[in-house]
Amino acid sequence: MASRKIGLWLVGAHGGVATTVAVGLSALRQGLIKPTGLVSETPAFADLPFAGWERWVLGGHEIRQTTAVASAHDLARTSRAFSEQLVDKCRPDLEQLDSRVRPGVVRNVGNTIRKLMSPGFAREAGSARELITLLQADWDEFVAQQELEQVVVVNLASTEPPVAKESLPRDVESLLSSLETTECPLPASSLYAIAAIERGHPFVNFTPSLGSDLPAIDELARQRGSAHVGRDGKTGETFLKSVLAPAFAARNLEVMSWVGHNIFGNLDGVVLNDPVNKATKVASKDKLLGEILGYAPQTLVSIEYIQSLGDWKTAWDHIHFRGFLETPMMMQFTWQGCDSILAAPLVLDLARFAELAARRGASGTLDFLASFFKSPQGSPTHHFFEQFAQLQRWAAELRTNG
Amino acid sequence: MASRKIGLWLVGAHGGVATTVAVGLSALRQGLIKPTGLVSETPAFADLPFAGWERWVLGGHEIRQTTAVASAHDLARTSRAFSEQLVDKCRPDLEQLDSRVRPGVVRNVGNTIRKLMSPGFAREAGSARELITLLQADWDEFVAQQELEQVVVVNLASTEPPVAKESLPRDVESLLSSLETTECPLPASSLYAIAAIERGHPFVNFTPSLGSDLPAIDELARQRGSAHVGRDGKTGETFLKSVLAPAFAARNLEVMSWVGHNIFGNLDGVVLNDPVNKATKVASKDKLLGEILGYAPQTLVSIEYIQSLGDWKTAWDHIHFRGFLETPMMMQFTWQGCDSILAAPLVLDLARFAELAARRGASGTLDFLASFFKSPQGSPTHHFFEQFAQLQRWAAELRTNG
Amino acid sequence: MASRKIGLWLVGAHGGVATTVAVGLSALRQGLIKPTGLVSETPAFADLPFAGWERWVLGGHEIRQTTAVASAHDLARTSRAFSEQLVDKCRPDLEQLDSRVRPGVVRNVGNTIRKLMSPGFAREAGSARELITLLQADWDEFVAQQELEQVVVVNLASTEPPVAKESLPRDVESLLSSLETTECPLPASSLYAIAAIERGHPFVNFTPSLGSDLPAIDELARQRGSAHVGRDGKTGETFLKSVLAPAFAARNLEVMSWVGHNIFGNLDGVVLNDPVNKATKVASKDKLLGEILGYAPQTLVSIEYIQSLGDWKTAWDHIHFRGFLETPMMMQFTWQGCDSILAAPLVLDLARFAELAARRGASGTLDFLASFFKSPQGSPTHHFFEQFAQLQRWAAELRTNG
Amino acid sequence: MASRKIGLWLVGAHGGVATTVAVGLSALRQGLIKPTGLVSETPAFADLPFAGWERWVLGGHEIRQTTAVASAHDLARTSRAFSEQLVDKCRPDLEQLDSRVRPGVVRNVGNTIRKLMSPGFAREAGSARELITLLQADWDEFVAQQELEQVVVVNLASTEPPVAKESLPRDVESLLSSLETTECPLPASSLYAIAAIERGHPFVNFTPSLGSDLPAIDELARQRGSAHVGRDGKTGETFLKSVLAPAFAARNLEVMSWVGHNIFGNLDGVVLNDPVNKATKVASKDKLLGEILGYAPQTLVSIEYIQSLGDWKTAWDHIHFRGFLETPMMMQFTWQGCDSILAAPLVLDLARFAELAARRGASGTLDFLASFFKSPQGSPTHHFFEQFAQLQRWAAELRTNG
Repeated sequence: MASRKIGLWLVGAHGGVATTVAVGLSALRQGLIKPTGLVSETPAFADLPFAGWERWVLGGHEIRQTTAVASAHDLARTSRAFSEQLVDKCRPDLEQLDSRVRPGVVRNVGNTIRKLMSPGFAREAGSARELITLLQADWDEFVAQQELEQVVVVNLASTEPPVAKESLPRDVESLLSSLETTECPLPASSLYAIAAIERGHPFVNFTPSLGSDLPAIDELARQRGSAHVGRDGKTGETFLKSVLAPAFAARNLEVMSWVGHNIFGNLDGVVLNDPVNKATKVASKDKLLGEILGYAPQTLVSIEYIQSLGDWKTAWDHIHFRGFLETPMMMQFTWQGCDSILAAPLVLDLARFAELAARRGASGTLDFLASFFKSPQGSPTHHFFEQFAQLQRWAAELRTNG
Repeated sequence: MASRKIGLWLVGAHGGVATTVAVGLSALRQGLIKPTGLVSETPAFADLPFAGWERWVLGGHEIRQTTAVASAHDLARTSRAFSEQLVDKCRPDLEQLDSRVRPGVVRNVGNTIRKLMSPGFAREAGSARELITLLQADWDEFVAQQELEQVVVVNLASTEPPVAKESLPRDVESLLSSLETTECPLPASSLYAIAAIERGHPFVNFTPSLGSDLPAIDELARQRGSAHVGRDGKTGETFLKSVLAPAFAARNLEVMSWVGHNIFGNLDGVVLNDPVNKATKVASKDKLLGEILGYAPQTLVSIEYIQSLGDWKTAWDHIHFRGFLETPMMMQFTWQGCDSILAAPLVLDLARFAELAARRGASGTLDFLASFFKSPQGSPTHHFFEQFAQLQRWAAELRTNG
Repeated sequence: MASRKIGLWLVGAHGGVATTVAVGLSALRQGLIKPTGLVSETPAFADLPFAGWERWVLGGHEIRQTTAVASAHDLARTSRAFSEQLVDKCRPDLEQLDSRVRPGVVRNVGNTIRKLMSPGFAREAGSARELITLLQADWDEFVAQQELEQVVVVNLASTEPPVAKESLPRDVESLLSSLETTECPLPASSLYAIAAIERGHPFVNFTPSLGSDLPAIDELARQRGSAHVGRDGKTGETFLKSVLAPAFAARNLEVMSWVGHNIFGNLDGVVLNDPVNKATKVASKDKLLGEILGYAPQTLVSIEYIQSLGDWKTAWDHIHFRGFLETPMMMQFTWQGCDSILAAPLVLDLARFAELAARRGASGTLDFLASFFKSPQGSPTHHFFEQFAQLQRWAAELRTNG
Repeated sequence: MASRKIGLWLVGAHGGVATTVAVGLSALRQGLIKPTGLVSETPAFADLPFAGWERWVLGGHEIRQTTAVASAHDLARTSRAFSEQLVDKCRPDLEQLDSRVRPGVVRNVGNTIRKLMSPGFAREAGSARELITLLQADWDEFVAQQELEQVVVVNLASTEPPVAKESLPRDVESLLSSLETTECPLPASSLYAIAAIERGHPFVNFTPSLGSDLPAIDELARQRGSAHVGRDGKTGETFLKSVLAPAFAARNLEVMSWVGHNIFGNLDGVVLNDPVNKATKVASKDKLLGEILGYAPQTLVSIEYIQSLGDWKTAWDHIHFRGFLETPMMMQFTWQGCDSILAAPLVLDLARFAELAARRGASGTLDFLASFFKSPQGSPTHHFFEQFAQLQRWAAELRTNG
């Protein structure tokens, strides 16, 4: 008997990352590309019983009225992220995705994101619970129509403003009762998380937004036997920080200051140009250094919107450190990466790892996925290779225990 | 009863690295500096029963007639590596070192190194065995005069030209008999290695020269119960390669090309400007990428002498890689480090680790020290954090088994 | 008959730039250094009848109680800007300067600068006119005691917050009457300018503060036959912008965005970390691109205080431009300069050029000095080589007309 | 009466630069692009009576059997220099060019270039004079078929090895007689030059090859009333050197060393990877610094072939300079440019300027075009803005005198 299909539900279905996920999944299925950039396809993990690419079906939520084909051509033209020929070859799959995109929900996302909404398109009225019910109905329909075995929900929507911790529910009971109100302080990302967890769909938060990163939501997940993980995909500058900072620590080189300036020009950039939304992101990029080094060097992280760069992000990092005899030295790096191209394969990897873990009965925080995140839920370390060893140990155990 | 002293014998005693070792050891003993840059002083290892800095006594071989004080002032003035005030405070210790420097041996070192010799100062006449006997006599005198418990010999001399492998002895027997001839193809660095191994002194080769990196010499070391390790201290650009390349591999980012240009202006630079000597170095800096990545990207390594830089080395690395959908991206870094300042603490670390290992009975290649070397003897991996984990496992075992 | 001495009065006498001016002038007089960094000593100008270094005498105003010797040792130790040996050789001259430093005036300088004041040391009470009178008395005493032929006043004090243009006097009459009040909106830098202009001392504003950059003050200068110029010495990143942007324009390469991030750690950095004071600086660094290119690319300038850098400033500039067929390309540069070392020789140059111009009867704005300034008073262009040609034409005319 | 057409004859007609010239000219004519990158279209020159783009007709010589369409698609696909859509729109014009490409001549071009030849395609037999006659016949046919008013010949072929100066003819007479022999030491580029000059066609040498850069050839040009100029288009790193070095000189900052590493992956790179051909190029990139600065800093220029870069060139320059008080400082830049995109508009500009000058009666070296060349024939200066001022003066005179 052939295996049943698996859904990959993209929140923010027409953003750059989701569009690249859709183009990439189509290209993989058609054998048009090598699996470059996919962790699950490296020798370290390729033997695991992942669901094959041909089994994955895409759907998603979105708050802007546009199409995957239009987004893909825009990425090809504006940013030269991939060729327009490739988009043409993937067009049927992209059109299929378009037919399965539903209006997203908007709640506590700040004005800048609200301005991106196509008027009257997104859902925002009612209590949090009412919004959650709408989301779950979309997924139920998706499962029924596509005869799916499982749905993995991945949040790729724009970064929300930070939420005041004191205002948030502290246990499952107050969490659930707060959902009944229209004043519920939870942002949209957390409503998606709760909706998925209640339905038993693994939830992955690839953004810096709150999502499932709340003890009460984790408790709910454990109660329901659902898996979740996040937050903020570690793709570029922060990935390098988590690789390099441990090297400075290992050699007892004292980092005096670490400055990181990031410039980029995609929709994320527009949203992050709002200081309120940017605060969430900068915090996520900045805090790991102290944890890794064991002391707090002076740090500075900037993220600025430079339109001409399109989907390309350039980071410049300046690391001023002291060596033997207290002599100051310097390392600088620039990283010129295409944001969606870096993020999309990790989204596909996370979907595969989360689906496999859920299939084997995992619930609660999938902490073995820490190496994929800037602010890994459930992980005690930001050291990339320690996180990666965690992933390898999980794979080894899975091989042993089936 | 107070512990006896331990000798640290520096081959190339008045070069930049050795001079910085001498200044640094003196400053550590006087409490003038923090232990920045010393791996043995990090929380991961600081509890091990290393010999304290106050127990170490310096001596060395050198082929140029100069003094430690002059070398130190030159480093301070030309390169601003440390301040002249610090040199003044360390002057008594540096003068002590000068009184224990003996003429080095010169054999198969190439013309550029020969040109650096002070005329009539170095020893080069006779068979290899006769030169070895002279070295051993110097150490016997050092041990007797200073009442030493142990001597660690560290090679810091200029890089020799590569040696044709076919010409080298293949077993201990032919090794020992070749020493009796004047045509013995072994370079000076290997004579130092054999001399130390025969006397039971741990031998560390911090340079790219051959040293003890020959099966026949390793066999000799195991026969005599002596410890040795090398080669080529991993201080800057190659250190970063061994940190970053595994990160590209972990993320399945395909490195298409990795270009590294190095410019610096110290004595090493003069020697490496000779293409014959440079060949040894470039090979040592270049080969690790293929091993780590599992395929061979196009690589280019240059090392050029730029006088104005003095002891400062600037590396520029340009990494061109392909991500998802075969999109090309780029990372570049510059590393501006002071060569002697980076190397000297590792020499002190290696002396401590080697002495401790020998004290606990280690013999043959000290492969757990791989993280310190560009071309680690006895190590299957160039991945820095795997090498570092090896060092941590050795420490853990030592704690357990005493 | 021997020529009489000339005074160089430094406002901000114990800051990094002034201290380096003092060390440098002393070193030049003693023949300890080559004239590197001095424009007036290049073949293009060296034949002009400048006042020789031996004729210059230093004095200054300062709001912090410290000494030139302490400042110089601090620069040597913290920033390795020059050696402590050099400071020792210049000590007598630095002590002479200390004996001629008087308490500065503080007026409309913002809180951050006020916090730097040694309590009770600076002068701030009374009307603007009363403060001006105190300044003039200091200079009269300086002239009398040192038997000076001329005094050039150079403002090197910390950057003041911007001043609202509407509030400022529009002609000489209202300027002079506003000085009688305590509510006079002019900042300290303008009081120094007016005081100097009224006494006929050439005034140079090396900072982004307002100084003499007001039509009413320029009118006063022309009435009194006094010379003045400013503002904001062009030493590093902006200097490079004024060199590179014309090259992009000449080749019809379209600059889409120009991002400049500046990090540094001196006292200026502390002051500029206050957003109010920073606004003045950023405006001065940013506006030239539009003027040079003839259109307005997206620009971003940041200046951030990173303590570990001391007096060293690192700028990273990222220039994204479009070439033929609208293909985007990139230039990036880093500039690692020591702020005081870059600025001090230009201060000495400006003093020399201003003194010579005044001696030859110049009055009003010395617009031929535009190449020295980020916001050149009286100059129609920011193109460095056009500004430099202006300076060369002035020199040619001076040679012709005497 | 409508103006007659003008020929632009490209030697190396299917190389990257020539292909981009063809695509660009077609796109300009169709109004598909803005004139970015074209000097002749800036406000400084746009009013000159240049021949409009619609009047230019392309032809060329080539030694490889390929087509302009294939080359253009290759540039689009491998290097993302421009889009494949654009190539499709220009296809008719490219096919027209293909119909006018004739087999090139090969003589003294070195083995690496010879290996690029399609077997049996290029012409190499006979005396130099016989080869010249073949070239002239091609042009005569071109003029007749297209009814051309003028033909500008531009050399874009691969860089030849350097030619020993002693072996070259010293006057017109010996030049002409040497052409009759098969041993004539002149390389192909000079045969093209002589052929063009004899026919009165302006000749532009955009490569580092010898071309017309010989007193005897210049004399011939003046005798025949023909115009010529070269050599080596100044597009990227050297352009920046000629902009930045004068800035260091103007500020009396002493350049101690200037290191430039260039990596790129196009056909030029293959040819320049041959050390013999590279020598010609490196000399052309290196010598300007001494001329501009007035002293000789240590310099290093490398050019290396890195296949993955395709037509993109990355230069990394490291400038180590001394400022006031002899403090060392640093500037570094990277330049990421697409070689053909940078070069092609300058080829079009040079064709226009040369045609206009010839139309107004210019003969001999067109030294006012120095700003376009790394090794400008007839120019006393390498200072970019002085060269540019020369161009502006020529334009002013042309406006005045018609």
